[in-house]
Amino acid sequence: MVEKFQAKNPDFEAVVRDSFARQPFMAHVNAEMTALAPGVCELKTVRMTELTQQHGFFHGGLVVSLADSAAGYAAYSLFPPSSTVLTVDLKTNFLNPANGQMLKAVGTVISEGDKLYHVKAEAFSIDNGKEKLCLTGLFTMMCLQGKSDGVAVDGK
Amino acid sequence: MVEKFQAKNPDFEAVVRDSFARQPFMAHVNAEMTALAPGVCELKTVRMTELTQQHGFFHGGLVVSLADSAAGYAAYSLFPPSSTVLTVDLKTNFLNPANGQMLKAVGTVISEGDKLYHVKAEAFSIDNGKEKLCLTGLFTMMCLQGKSDGVAVDGK
Amino acid sequence: MVEKFQAKNPDFEAVVRDSFARQPFMAHVNAEMTALAPGVCELKTVRMTELTQQHGFFHGGLVVSLADSAAGYAAYSLFPPSSTVLTVDLKTNFLNPANGQMLKAVGTVISEGDKLYHVKAEAFSIDNGKEKLCLTGLFTMMCLQGKSDGVAVDGK
Amino acid sequence: MVEKFQAKNPDFEAVVRDSFARQPFMAHVNAEMTALAPGVCELKTVRMTELTQQHGFFHGGLVVSLADSAAGYAAYSLFPPSSTVLTVDLKTNFLNPANGQMLKAVGTVISEGDKLYHVKAEAFSIDNGKEKLCLTGLFTMMCLQGKSDGVAVDGK
Repeated sequence: MVEKFQAKNPDFEAVVRDSFARQPFMAHVNAEMTALAPGVCELKTVRMTELTQQHGFFHGGLVVSLADSAAGYAAYSLFPPSSTVLTVDLKTNFLNPANGQMLKAVGTVISEGDKLYHVKAEAFSIDNGKEKLCLTGLFTMMCLQGKSDGVAVDGK
Repeated sequence: MVEKFQAKNPDFEAVVRDSFARQPFMAHVNAEMTALAPGVCELKTVRMTELTQQHGFFHGGLVVSLADSAAGYAAYSLFPPSSTVLTVDLKTNFLNPANGQMLKAVGTVISEGDKLYHVKAEAFSIDNGKEKLCLTGLFTMMCLQGKSDGVAVDGK
Repeated sequence: MVEKFQAKNPDFEAVVRDSFARQPFMAHVNAEMTALAPGVCELKTVRMTELTQQHGFFHGGLVVSLADSAAGYAAYSLFPPSSTVLTVDLKTNFLNPANGQMLKAVGTVISEGDKLYHVKAEAFSIDNGKEKLCLTGLFTMMCLQGKSDGVAVDGK
Repeated sequence: MVEKFQAKNPDFEAVVRDSFARQPFMAHVNAEMTALAPGVCELKTVRMTELTQQHGFFHGGLVVSLADSAAGYAAYSLFPPSSTVLTVDLKTNFLNPANGQMLKAVGTVISEGDKLYHVKAEAFSIDNGKEKLCLTGLFTMMCLQGKSDGVAVDGK
């Protein structure tokens, strides 16, 4: 039921990867962008103690964080030039504990509008190559045209 | 409309603070537990570059992470002894960019059932003492009785 | 934490009540608008068998329907003239079965933006004058300026 | 990524269809169960004025109602004998106006646990045989074992 999308910006890959590289929080959680196509983005991080909660699993907030960036960049890959992205809302179900050695999040655009993009995101824990679905969620992303993707000068 | 709740565990404060101290991810994002009462938990963190996204704001995933732990510990404060907590689902709206110097998340239990606890969480950015609501959300928490809150031996 | 809002349209009450009267589905479920103020809307319906599910409670979908219209008209009361409203997304937790004789839904705007309005909605079952919170939810509403609130000619 | 599920109750089809037939609200909105398999349920209704909102589209609350029952019965089809189902929470994105002549909702179980079932639901409007995705959502359903699926005697 998921449509195929066309990038409106021929430089989408450079623009998305550059923006991701300017998210210090993604570096702080060791996330890497492992795949990117129009409307689809995949991120991964490897288990380290700093990313876990009291049971030793990836922290739920960390799983959502990875899913949020994957969903946001899946949408951003379809935006026109000279725009930026903000998350309007997100909703996620946690299906299984994220107890593997690696965490993967995949954002996939479901539909695109004038300003709003609906994105599905899933997160998987990976243990010895075996993937387990940990989180599934819906994210609403907003396209802000004519707004810089860089650091806000006026704090807005 | 929010009811007042009674703690079922007289040691709830020690139990909750001990569990929070065993969430390495909360230390990784410099979060502190700044208030705790039966059914209510407040966490704070101070802005540092590692917690931001490309516009220089607190990353949305970080805001959700703080809200998730605040909501989870608000619920956990009402659990009976010898139990642990898991997030079943969460849903959040982002109302304003989290662009202040400090971030505060407050979890407040709305209703408690046999196994499921419904919790509201709000996050505020604080700039020069002025609070701004950045996120409001609903979290469903599950009480697992007879299950250890420590590191899972079997990875479950 | 909820701000007070000002209506931008001096005729907001007539506009909102007229739109509500043109929702045949609300008549089909016997809903009445029992209160309206800038940013706040209350709807009520009385229990009849046609509104129930297999346990004899108000059907969950009916509860959401009432909450959705209450949330939408809470937002619409703050819109400028010559606009209409659409629900972007909704998320609700069911706290208790809706087993009373009357059902009340209250929508309250949390924040307003250029196009998007974040609205909280709660639904209560009422039995012998005693209210019980059945549903709490977050709704995102979109303001479409320059678009008719009447029947779509082109089906869009 | 969706697993295949096995029914635990050999009579699941009769049990589910009987329960659906005892939801007066589904009859009130003219819904029919058009397909059922373990973990999957499809409902349909035909456009009539009573189901619409002010633009002439199916009312958003009606769309959620159909999706909620489809999700609930998708889960219920996997429950053991002598149990009933309640919706814990739901979250939906509205992708397009539901402006066709027919509305179809499909619930599909994503994962099953001891008590909680995570279900995806989608709703489509159908115009001249052409389907359009209107709603996608996540529903959490609870299995209550040993509890009657009939009318509650004690109102609970």
